[in-house]
Amino acid sequence: MSRNGTARPAVRAVLDAALAEGRTALTAPEGKAVADAYGIPTPAEALAECSDDAVRLADRIGFPVALKIVSPDILHKTDAGGVRVGLSSAAEVRGAFTSIVSNAKAYAPDARILGVQVQQMVPEGTEVLVGTVTDPTFGKIVAFGLGGVLVEVLRDVTFRLAPASEEDALSMLDGIRAAEVLRGVRGGAAVDRAALAGLIVRVSRLAADFPEIAEVDLNPVFATDSGVMAADVRVILSTQQPPARRRFGREEILTSMRRLMEPDAIAVIGASNEQGKIGNSVMRNLVDGGFRGDIHPVNPKADDILGRKAYRSVTDVPGEPDVAVFAIPAKSVPGALEEVGRKGIPNAVLIPSGFAETGEHELQARIVAIAEEYGVRLLGPNIYGYYSTWQDLCATFCTPYDVKGGVALTSQSGGIGMAILGFARTTKTGVSAIVGLGNKSDLDEDDLLTWFGEDPHTECIAMHLEDLKDGRAFVEAARATVPKKPVVVLKAGRTAAGAKAAGSHTGALAGDDAVYDDVLRQAGVIRAPGLGEMLEYARALPVLPAPKGDNVVIITGAGGSGVLLSDAIVDNGLQLMEIPEDLDAAFRKFIPPFGAAGNPVDITGGEPPSTYEKTIRLGLEDPRIHALVLGYWHTIVTPPMVFAELTARVVAEFRERGIEKPVVASLAGDTEVEEACAYLYEHGVVAYPYTTEKPVEALGAKYRWARAAGLLTT
Amino acid sequence: MSRNGTARPAVRAVLDAALAEGRTALTAPEGKAVADAYGIPTPAEALAECSDDAVRLADRIGFPVALKIVSPDILHKTDAGGVRVGLSSAAEVRGAFTSIVSNAKAYAPDARILGVQVQQMVPEGTEVLVGTVTDPTFGKIVAFGLGGVLVEVLRDVTFRLAPASEEDALSMLDGIRAAEVLRGVRGGAAVDRAALAGLIVRVSRLAADFPEIAEVDLNPVFATDSGVMAADVRVILSTQQPPARRRFGREEILTSMRRLMEPDAIAVIGASNEQGKIGNSVMRNLVDGGFRGDIHPVNPKADDILGRKAYRSVTDVPGEPDVAVFAIPAKSVPGALEEVGRKGIPNAVLIPSGFAETGEHELQARIVAIAEEYGVRLLGPNIYGYYSTWQDLCATFCTPYDVKGGVALTSQSGGIGMAILGFARTTKTGVSAIVGLGNKSDLDEDDLLTWFGEDPHTECIAMHLEDLKDGRAFVEAARATVPKKPVVVLKAGRTAAGAKAAGSHTGALAGDDAVYDDVLRQAGVIRAPGLGEMLEYARALPVLPAPKGDNVVIITGAGGSGVLLSDAIVDNGLQLMEIPEDLDAAFRKFIPPFGAAGNPVDITGGEPPSTYEKTIRLGLEDPRIHALVLGYWHTIVTPPMVFAELTARVVAEFRERGIEKPVVASLAGDTEVEEACAYLYEHGVVAYPYTTEKPVEALGAKYRWARAAGLLTT
Repeated sequence: MSRNGTARPAVRAVLDAALAEGRTALTAPEGKAVADAYGIPTPAEALAECSDDAVRLADRIGFPVALKIVSPDILHKTDAGGVRVGLSSAAEVRGAFTSIVSNAKAYAPDARILGVQVQQMVPEGTEVLVGTVTDPTFGKIVAFGLGGVLVEVLRDVTFRLAPASEEDALSMLDGIRAAEVLRGVRGGAAVDRAALAGLIVRVSRLAADFPEIAEVDLNPVFATDSGVMAADVRVILSTQQPPARRRFGREEILTSMRRLMEPDAIAVIGASNEQGKIGNSVMRNLVDGGFRGDIHPVNPKADDILGRKAYRSVTDVPGEPDVAVFAIPAKSVPGALEEVGRKGIPNAVLIPSGFAETGEHELQARIVAIAEEYGVRLLGPNIYGYYSTWQDLCATFCTPYDVKGGVALTSQSGGIGMAILGFARTTKTGVSAIVGLGNKSDLDEDDLLTWFGEDPHTECIAMHLEDLKDGRAFVEAARATVPKKPVVVLKAGRTAAGAKAAGSHTGALAGDDAVYDDVLRQAGVIRAPGLGEMLEYARALPVLPAPKGDNVVIITGAGGSGVLLSDAIVDNGLQLMEIPEDLDAAFRKFIPPFGAAGNPVDITGGEPPSTYEKTIRLGLEDPRIHALVLGYWHTIVTPPMVFAELTARVVAEFRERGIEKPVVASLAGDTEVEEACAYLYEHGVVAYPYTTEKPVEALGAKYRWARAAGLLTT
Repeated sequence: MSRNGTARPAVRAVLDAALAEGRTALTAPEGKAVADAYGIPTPAEALAECSDDAVRLADRIGFPVALKIVSPDILHKTDAGGVRVGLSSAAEVRGAFTSIVSNAKAYAPDARILGVQVQQMVPEGTEVLVGTVTDPTFGKIVAFGLGGVLVEVLRDVTFRLAPASEEDALSMLDGIRAAEVLRGVRGGAAVDRAALAGLIVRVSRLAADFPEIAEVDLNPVFATDSGVMAADVRVILSTQQPPARRRFGREEILTSMRRLMEPDAIAVIGASNEQGKIGNSVMRNLVDGGFRGDIHPVNPKADDILGRKAYRSVTDVPGEPDVAVFAIPAKSVPGALEEVGRKGIPNAVLIPSGFAETGEHELQARIVAIAEEYGVRLLGPNIYGYYSTWQDLCATFCTPYDVKGGVALTSQSGGIGMAILGFARTTKTGVSAIVGLGNKSDLDEDDLLTWFGEDPHTECIAMHLEDLKDGRAFVEAARATVPKKPVVVLKAGRTAAGAKAAGSHTGALAGDDAVYDDVLRQAGVIRAPGLGEMLEYARALPVLPAPKGDNVVIITGAGGSGVLLSDAIVDNGLQLMEIPEDLDAAFRKFIPPFGAAGNPVDITGGEPPSTYEKTIRLGLEDPRIHALVLGYWHTIVTPPMVFAELTARVVAEFRERGIEKPVVASLAGDTEVEEACAYLYEHGVVAYPYTTEKPVEALGAKYRWARAAGLLTT
């Protein structure tokens, strides 16, 4: 490839010339010049201005040739009847020239027609599409898919951030549903993967190198077993560039986040003695929650609030508070924020609503400007506040929460925050933090990810979001975090209808969900399909140890559960271990002769606790097995709590011996199984009653993380 | 089409000739003869035995032509290098003949080569595949998909029972993911739908008319805007036909099922006074469950059991019992069953295991023979028994269940049966029956469907199954039932790994899941993706009234829930209503100015109960709205139970006025929302805490049924 000193100036010259003429679409010859500069192979071609020209050029290039209309005003040449292929003689070329020009004139009477391109016929091969787009969230994105119907109708296309690495590009070849086609199907040749990946890399660099290239479309590219050739190059320019977003350094983020999440002193602006007021709820939750640092109420009209000395202004508060929580009306925020800035308080938690979400964009812009001037970081506005449970800190107007544990949860919406709280309480989910992000005028998911990645109390991060202000910053933070701990994301507004609602809710332009999906997956993020799943993953992931390999074994007392658990294994992209003969024989020793061999290990229904115990022990003991899925069937012989206790005991015993494998369980039985599931969960086994899907989904989420974190070593 | 008097004899002659030669694959000329008889268009063609022949024939047919090897031993011609297309001259034809023959000899040295087919080149068009297969569950099945990569790699193919009607065939054209291609994409012409549907119908009739046709493969078929042409016809014969299955008439089924489900007297064979024995559990459950009919214990060694006179043999029992429940070891079943037969008891409920599921196929065959001889219908063996709650009948060894209601549940597996029981009890699901089917030696899903379809207590039927003994009987029963009440099916063994487990569990050959999926959907069955969903649908469907049209409106207090609910709406194939201007204005009167317009109706977070009430009233009142999805956000202003009570009250008020619309709700909040959800459910509103997906999935299931039952009239 020719990405040496001459490539950029060559492209720059083409782009500048087009933009100088006020054009945002390059002509085919311009596109070819750009492609040549970046080593993108295209067919030999030349421009014919009349039919004689065309015949002469066809002779030089060699028959057969293709003819294509050249007009800056016609983008979809085929739609305009402006393309003829496989022309094998001078007579055919002459006829095609005439009809293409007249078709184009009929299609777009005002179009400027520069001539007709005479083009070398591309080699027969697999049609693919390679292109780039500019995504509002993630910026330059490179796309790959099979050409024609597959991309257009089935949207079988995959995306990566541009520039893409060689590894990214190769992963794209496997990232489409029809990936098998590229490896050769029924007699078709496999494509040259290195050449195709190289093309993707070069196109992605082209887009990344020039901010003004809004879109590149190589469609179709013909990929053969010996190379690639782009039959059509379409380049769209943009004259507007998005404004650069303010970025903070990692240390800056950690310093202010530490003071937010582990504060020594908090000021509450708008603290109140009056029940029902937000400033009263926040004060009570801080005091009742047992926060060990200083709490300074600020209220110009009170001397003391909940028994603590109140200050007229935050500037009067003694010492150097770490956080100012705002519980005052929106219109009073700017003034108070200036005082917070002057006082040198690094964090403002803005509970009030009445900003961008109600159309008050100017007011929000004003507080952002004040915060930037004074170096104050803003959480919110329009939030319920936040919890930092290991600090016994409940800086919210909701109800307190004190079950300390490993999961940090964030939500863009207050309603979802309340669902998080209720779910956590009813399931006794151990939480390190719950944070409302609201309008995200400043602090957002990437700041929180950066902090929680470092926070030793946090073992898993789960985030509800409707948009990302800076997709690239989020991806960077996620990539830095995922090797250490799982990140779960519930991206709302996934579907067209949902995205529309997101637009009306936050004013944010919702990104294309397919782009989100691919980019988040590449960043190693576990995407939850819905709220229920996000909450269950958040609960389960810190409980489960990481698997070290792919071999999952089902041990079940109910054959029927075994079948459904197998379905769930496949649905969740897990692998039912092929049981080696010696291991099969070892399991068989413990189970009745009519129990099913292989995997699931069907111990059959009427077995005593010892059968469950022996087979679970074997499953944990054998190093070839990496994860266990248990199917329990409620019988008089082995009641639910007996099963729960023996399983918890065996798992704990192995853990003490240093053998940790993820174990999940589905309990089929009468209502006693609910207590058994709660007991199992508390003892490190993710267990659910009346469902075979949920335990396997949780295991699947853990596996997705383990794969992204590179932990599947065997 | 020529399906008149000559079609069948012509095909019969071809098939007989091939079978007489011991061949199960037709040659291309034979395939063409069959196609001609059934009006399946194929290209003009003739057989060439030497290259001179080929050139002569090509001249007659007209260039360009295609050449294809003809050998009874080579099925995949392309793989053998046995196909050349687009041959435009005598020289090309001559060369192609030679190379095809030598390729074929290299590919399969022993193959008998009959010559080379010279074929008219088919018109360029959309490549599709039309074929038939013989499915072990459903028999003759017709398949349709786009040709090439789409079918082979993406398995984008759809199935119907053969023979297919014109309507079936047209629905297949819309039943593939790439359906849009057939309507013409970017300049491509739409195909002739009538011609393509006609082809599907004719091929399906061909397969249905001849049991010995195992498989027909028309691949590719070229579909253009003016017709269709099958470029290749492959027909595979089978010499073995499946044995005919015994079928009972509808009235026979209803008569015996009525005596099973609404018995006056039951005999318990193996009834026992000894705690822990199954015969003791069954007796106690019958007595304690409050069954009002006669209960006759049978035990040769006891005089009375649980205070009731015991009989030495079932032949000694007075009167004419309707049901004999077996609680004796497998080996004793045949003898006792003969006595039951002689006594004229129409139903035997076989709880014991130790039959086909443990490899004892002969023992199972023996009891089936005895039952047939005496006209006894068998439930089981290898089951937990059954519940008929409106009769206060608990003929099981599990725990009793007495919450009477509208859903009948069946399970093939005992473990799943226990999960049904536990789930029903914890959610207070109103049940009409729970039935274990186990080995299905006789009674199976179609018998039960037939009965529950008529049973006035049953409003919804939910079935867990791993296989169907007679797919066509099930489809018939489902088609008769669905217009009256919803049928939910959890088909286990959906995936390849799952299907393998099903095989080892029940010895049943698991059908191809794609066939199940299409055939069940065509029968109007709601397929549950997992156990959890089956149970939730079973609980929810009888609670929700049927919608009358497609317009769903979301009313939400939490914008964040609104976005997620919109996602769920689209995921479940529902339609967010486009709100007309006047309706939008009417909603706006009740909500703050910054609340979002359109759908979702975002009433915003801090609103009092009256805002919820006014908007819900409007949603129920306006006849253009057909279903409501509510998003509740827990606040001090409108606590959970206040929301629940007002919603239940308004829904009840409208119901009294004759206005019934399905209303579902997602409650986001602290744990108080759980009580509120339970209250709402009891009052006809399907409500879940901490999830936006489940309420919409339940609504989606109701809509799927309403559509299948033809109830969406507006």
